[in-house]
Amino acid sequence: MKKKLLGATLAGAVALGSFGLGNALMETEAKGPKQQEKKPKNVIMMVTDGTSSSTTTLARWYKGAPLHMDQLMAGGVRAYSAESAITDSAPAGTALATGNKSNSGYVGVLPSLVTTPGVEQIKEEDKYRPVANVLEGAKLSGKATGIVATSEIQHATPAGFSAHHHDRNNFDVLGEQQVYQGIDVVLGGGKQSLVTGEGSKNRKDGENLVEVIDEKGYDFVENRDELLKSKSDKIWGSFSDSALAYEMDRKQTKPQEPTISEMTDKALTTLSKDKDGFFLFVEGSKPDWAAHANDPVGMVSDVLAFDKAVGEAVEFAKKDKNTMVIVVSDHGNSGISIGSKNTDKNYDTTPVSAYIDPLKKAKMTLEGAMGSLNKDLSNKEEVAALYGLDNLTVDEKKQLDAAKDKNAIGVTLSKLLANRANLGFTTGGHTGEDMFLYSYGVDRPVGHYDNTDLAKHMAKAMNFDLDKLTDELFIEATKAFKGANVTVNKQDPQNPVLVVKSNKRTVEFPVNKNIAVVNGKEIEMNSVVVQDKNGRFFVSKQAQDIVKKGK
Amino acid sequence: MKKKLLGATLAGAVALGSFGLGNALMETEAKGPKQQEKKPKNVIMMVTDGTSSSTTTLARWYKGAPLHMDQLMAGGVRAYSAESAITDSAPAGTALATGNKSNSGYVGVLPSLVTTPGVEQIKEEDKYRPVANVLEGAKLSGKATGIVATSEIQHATPAGFSAHHHDRNNFDVLGEQQVYQGIDVVLGGGKQSLVTGEGSKNRKDGENLVEVIDEKGYDFVENRDELLKSKSDKIWGSFSDSALAYEMDRKQTKPQEPTISEMTDKALTTLSKDKDGFFLFVEGSKPDWAAHANDPVGMVSDVLAFDKAVGEAVEFAKKDKNTMVIVVSDHGNSGISIGSKNTDKNYDTTPVSAYIDPLKKAKMTLEGAMGSLNKDLSNKEEVAALYGLDNLTVDEKKQLDAAKDKNAIGVTLSKLLANRANLGFTTGGHTGEDMFLYSYGVDRPVGHYDNTDLAKHMAKAMNFDLDKLTDELFIEATKAFKGANVTVNKQDPQNPVLVVKSNKRTVEFPVNKNIAVVNGKEIEMNSVVVQDKNGRFFVSKQAQDIVKKGK
Repeated sequence: MKKKLLGATLAGAVALGSFGLGNALMETEAKGPKQQEKKPKNVIMMVTDGTSSSTTTLARWYKGAPLHMDQLMAGGVRAYSAESAITDSAPAGTALATGNKSNSGYVGVLPSLVTTPGVEQIKEEDKYRPVANVLEGAKLSGKATGIVATSEIQHATPAGFSAHHHDRNNFDVLGEQQVYQGIDVVLGGGKQSLVTGEGSKNRKDGENLVEVIDEKGYDFVENRDELLKSKSDKIWGSFSDSALAYEMDRKQTKPQEPTISEMTDKALTTLSKDKDGFFLFVEGSKPDWAAHANDPVGMVSDVLAFDKAVGEAVEFAKKDKNTMVIVVSDHGNSGISIGSKNTDKNYDTTPVSAYIDPLKKAKMTLEGAMGSLNKDLSNKEEVAALYGLDNLTVDEKKQLDAAKDKNAIGVTLSKLLANRANLGFTTGGHTGEDMFLYSYGVDRPVGHYDNTDLAKHMAKAMNFDLDKLTDELFIEATKAFKGANVTVNKQDPQNPVLVVKSNKRTVEFPVNKNIAVVNGKEIEMNSVVVQDKNGRFFVSKQAQDIVKKGK
Repeated sequence: MKKKLLGATLAGAVALGSFGLGNALMETEAKGPKQQEKKPKNVIMMVTDGTSSSTTTLARWYKGAPLHMDQLMAGGVRAYSAESAITDSAPAGTALATGNKSNSGYVGVLPSLVTTPGVEQIKEEDKYRPVANVLEGAKLSGKATGIVATSEIQHATPAGFSAHHHDRNNFDVLGEQQVYQGIDVVLGGGKQSLVTGEGSKNRKDGENLVEVIDEKGYDFVENRDELLKSKSDKIWGSFSDSALAYEMDRKQTKPQEPTISEMTDKALTTLSKDKDGFFLFVEGSKPDWAAHANDPVGMVSDVLAFDKAVGEAVEFAKKDKNTMVIVVSDHGNSGISIGSKNTDKNYDTTPVSAYIDPLKKAKMTLEGAMGSLNKDLSNKEEVAALYGLDNLTVDEKKQLDAAKDKNAIGVTLSKLLANRANLGFTTGGHTGEDMFLYSYGVDRPVGHYDNTDLAKHMAKAMNFDLDKLTDELFIEATKAFKGANVTVNKQDPQNPVLVVKSNKRTVEFPVNKNIAVVNGKEIEMNSVVVQDKNGRFFVSKQAQDIVKKGK
């Protein structure tokens, strides 16, 4: 990471020695070559959100050939949260990224409520405390880093690997931290949350993050062509105001967006230039969304799009021979089953085609088809046909006629398709079963893992310890700056600033940024300053050093 | 296996050399010690029937501690049949035991219908052909063998590992073949199918198999005490006319029956006396039955009983250091999910207790509780309370009142409990998702396997090839005895006899037995004679030799 160390983050480079990263990062230099070769240079973690076993099996039948994921099959993963048997994506992402169980909606911070048997109770002072993630550890180890998602990049799972806040819906905070994290490649949706404006997800804090992204030297790309052409070592791709389209709908509705495979491929090409290796996180976000809608077409087609990206990653790892790939779903969703009440008595003689042919008729996902619905709802049957529901029976027509608003139509279409395809669904929410674990390459995990253990496994593979890293990156400010005068400037309520006055100097730390301001001069730090739900600020040892030494 | 070779099956011992087993059994002697040590001496295959991922996860929460199976987590298994995306237990057992996809109801024979994409079409002459299983291969390799189940021992899955017939419901045929297979330890239910009588499952062929079991030198035991006391090398335990009780109900309803752990432990102790090693098959049969009834109490409690038996097997393997253990479910069942319509909106904050506490109130499984229902149905609420449904709400009472027959009451009780425990179910039938693979010990399989590949993996581990073994054990009689006069004596329609008249002698082969009759003298063979659905007989190379040489 020569460029980074000598370039923009020189202060960080100095800090790398001075703020004691040696405590967190095990001494790689000291190890002999034999032990060295057991650790991967690169780590790729890929998450297909909300994808139960039935979904991957169905995707395989739909494809008519083995999945790339199949060859990586390696065990199982427990996926509950600190407060529930069924996890939300935010604590799931937090677990996979930081090694800590957390609560619903909590991104990269510790829980405030622990009810799950076997999960350690949380100390009062630790509630909401930000905790270091594997991307931060990789970055501080000198590795290049990247995050890729088909949702808004600020969404719960990618945010879990790059930000710290107790509210997953606060894209202002999560998005700002991501921009100041020093990630090398960021590809996904959520452009609206990078700029101010009138949209529901536009920023309310007056910050224009696209300008910041430019200033930080990223190649900011907004469509597929720009992405594929970019030669930069730092790429920020924001391809949609909100989420990207389902792969199945993309060509028709958003041909300018890249596929998840293209984003993964570009991230790999870019990050692998770093001689110190890289950490890449990739999420296929929308199998989960389709599952919430009980839309098997969206589930299966976007799992296949994700699986193609897995193929890219494995191909890279096979050539590279020094990469660990972990693929997992963060939790189940929808209670989908191959087989339903329809097959109570004849499941054992019902051919594969009975489940697949009805899905194959669909030309778009439910979201895609519903996009063609007229405002006056006058073309319901046309939309149904797009969704594969042709030649409606009298009963099917009756059900569709009874649906009097857009939501009801969507629900009815998914019910009709599930019925035709003999698929069962139990819920519109997540489910609590163990998930499959897939892995490949050097030091790959095999067996039964808690989701938190996967984070620890990755950290160990990259030679750092997440707990120690947390203690170095997130010290509560009044403790960090004992003896100094520590206040919060709330003049701009959306952008509070931590102000530390010591004998020698005053240093300002604006929230959600990696910036210390000393005598009007900005110093870029190696990690972001975080404010928790109780208003407490958390800063790094590097921030302590800056207050002590002025640099 | 000195005793066996020098004792009852002397003819078999001669045949071991003469009928060319060398073709099927790879040359173990020829291999160096280094290659040798990669192959296990003992193989244990354990099946928890119809157990989806949600069921094992729920069982873990119910137990409040890791399962023994957890430490064996090793990948995934595809479980479709030749004709359907969702398999019946008979083709599932056939796949796991013989390495061949088959049809609904087919036990240890090839399919007659192939519709599943990717499954090789079946030749006309191969339809219904019996195919060798891993137990037969182990036996012919000189290993001791055993089968254990909590269902009738003639039930689909244990039958798949020990018999050959196109109709899983024909316990007469399957049970007779098992008795003549030369298995060393057989433990389970299904006593009714061993003897003649008026019961629905009593034998219709006039044979008294208990007498045969005695003649063959087994210690025939009928309860837990007799089993535990037995010192014999050959034990046949038949502990119930039909299936054994659920473990949860056993103490109250059938205290004389052994647990699945006790049966497994006894099988291991007995079989491990054989210096050549052993093959043991164990099935937890009733998680599947409970799943068909959507009874989460029966599912969870019997999975835990099975898991305890897994613990026994792993403990043995850990001490022995020369054993491969494979644990798998043969297919999903019931579409159970942790989470339901109840948790559509609050799954992420619903604690573990919300799923487990309602189950913990149950004192018996649904089957157990329903056993207390009065004939006049007058004590519904008492039965409900046994099943954990205490303090019925007005609505719950109303639903129970509406149930006017035994079946409706059972269905209602399971629905009420699922609702209280926030569990979803999609079907009363099997489901089609990939299952978890668990394994331990020498040469254990890790990764993504087709169920048929697990049979092949076990065969390879024991140094034989299933296809070659099939060609040696199951030759169509008119081909096997070309030149001879081959007829079937149907004088006793339930017990047809293959009659082979050559120039030199007449040999009779009664169906479903391992017996050749030459000049009124019985010769015991190493495998059973099978008749297929089309009336064709299948015999071994050993049978050919007997016709040629008279011995």
